[in-house]
Amino acid sequence: MIIDRLYESVDKKGVVCVGLDTSLDYLPAEFLKSFENIEDALFNFNKRIIDATFDAAGCFKVQIAYYEAYGIAGLMAYKKTLKYLREKGAVVIADIKRGDIAKTAEMYAKAHFTGDFESDFVTLSPYMGLDSIEPYLPYIDNEEKGVFVLVRTSNKGAEDIQYIKSENGKMIYDEVADKLYVMGEKHMGNCGYSSIGGVMGCTHVEEGLELRKRLAKMFFLIPGYGAQGGKAEDVALYLKDGNGGVVNSSRGILLAYRKQENGEKHFDECAAAETVRMRDEIAAAVKKLNA
Amino acid sequence: MIIDRLYESVDKKGVVCVGLDTSLDYLPAEFLKSFENIEDALFNFNKRIIDATFDAAGCFKVQIAYYEAYGIAGLMAYKKTLKYLREKGAVVIADIKRGDIAKTAEMYAKAHFTGDFESDFVTLSPYMGLDSIEPYLPYIDNEEKGVFVLVRTSNKGAEDIQYIKSENGKMIYDEVADKLYVMGEKHMGNCGYSSIGGVMGCTHVEEGLELRKRLAKMFFLIPGYGAQGGKAEDVALYLKDGNGGVVNSSRGILLAYRKQENGEKHFDECAAAETVRMRDEIAAAVKKLNA
Repeated sequence: MIIDRLYESVDKKGVVCVGLDTSLDYLPAEFLKSFENIEDALFNFNKRIIDATFDAAGCFKVQIAYYEAYGIAGLMAYKKTLKYLREKGAVVIADIKRGDIAKTAEMYAKAHFTGDFESDFVTLSPYMGLDSIEPYLPYIDNEEKGVFVLVRTSNKGAEDIQYIKSENGKMIYDEVADKLYVMGEKHMGNCGYSSIGGVMGCTHVEEGLELRKRLAKMFFLIPGYGAQGGKAEDVALYLKDGNGGVVNSSRGILLAYRKQENGEKHFDECAAAETVRMRDEIAAAVKKLNA
Repeated sequence: MIIDRLYESVDKKGVVCVGLDTSLDYLPAEFLKSFENIEDALFNFNKRIIDATFDAAGCFKVQIAYYEAYGIAGLMAYKKTLKYLREKGAVVIADIKRGDIAKTAEMYAKAHFTGDFESDFVTLSPYMGLDSIEPYLPYIDNEEKGVFVLVRTSNKGAEDIQYIKSENGKMIYDEVADKLYVMGEKHMGNCGYSSIGGVMGCTHVEEGLELRKRLAKMFFLIPGYGAQGGKAEDVALYLKDGNGGVVNSSRGILLAYRKQENGEKHFDECAAAETVRMRDEIAAAVKKLNA
């Protein structure tokens, strides 16, 4: 199962998920100028980042919104980026947050698990319910694919739905987590985690430990580190022995070069150094928590 | 505001939203064979449907999942379909159900309100909260755009989140509806409806009437008619004087030709006849309800 490949990759390379949320204005000016079109500029920037961070990245996450924003040219770069990552043997999460039902969901599954936009994992949004996840299950069972479903996010607006308490006293995100967990138990890898993972934003200490304990077999995709305020100690709560989750950083890695004098010329090395720094910082926090 | 254009279009042409959820296997075999590639086949099928149904369609909805499923070629057909619809002066809803926050949501707004994939309205999913809607607001105020946000759907899985009762006794979809309604009041058209609309699936009589009354200024995008079980009397509950909502039908219209002998050759005329039939059936149900 794909979750075993992700688990092994994290075991070997660490928990950092390098987020390729590549906006054209993130590219160093000189580098951008050297390309004639958007497709080549975006793809070649990604390629340099991928090559440089590869050995310290547990996986890569490609945020499709950034490519959709450039229309067909952007999606050509998206396609090439996914292909390059998969050919290198990386585990790739397509951050698409799709959420629909029936034949429409089948079409999304086909779109992102086969053909031009094939990835290993996709992210999904659960608002329409568990039947919006079901069309992806045949790919999990038969095609070495997996999903990460939005459970709990840390943005201000999360209060509007996720943090509403239901009449039985459970937060909505707990309702979602528990339902997904039951579904996930039928799609377990050998590593002890399910190929149905959850997107789980940072929280305070007690709740973080409780979530990790209760959802012991759910692999977490953890957003919000760095630029969005999450600290190494926060994400460590979700990482048992340094596995069971990956921690995404996008701008923190892609734009690391802006914090270095003359960083523009070696933006890829700056990205690699930040990936290593982040990996080691989180590993140290996990060690401290378990001490 | 765009909502005024939609209102006027419904006033003139009726409540039917023609859903272009175009799967390759919906195309008549002979027609499909006459094209050399997927892009041309999908686009030319759509073009025939659009031309034939144009006078009886209040608006068109293009379901992006069906085009994503065919990769770049599918998205080229998607782009051409949107362009053709907008050049003809149709009101176009891009059914994308995106849901993300911050810069990612800004990129989705840019993707679907400008450039290759420009449409008039997009559908959105609210799970991450109201800050996943906010990045679209500048386009509503300055660029004649609008959104339909998922509120209440009628699929089985809707029970998993939307139909959970919160501790204050409100269903989650009511929480969503009420929050969107407040937001929508700042983006009102002259027609009395907001450019922030809601996707509202069919329900039983009392609740339908209550929702329509309470959310008096919210324009509804109503799925589920026909193939999905919704009846004219059900959708009529949501339509004040035959406006204030549009009723989507996709397969019912695209595949109308399969119910006619030799329908394959004139699939577009069959689609047009079904659009007219549906429009008149719903208009009669609205009239009966108001009698």
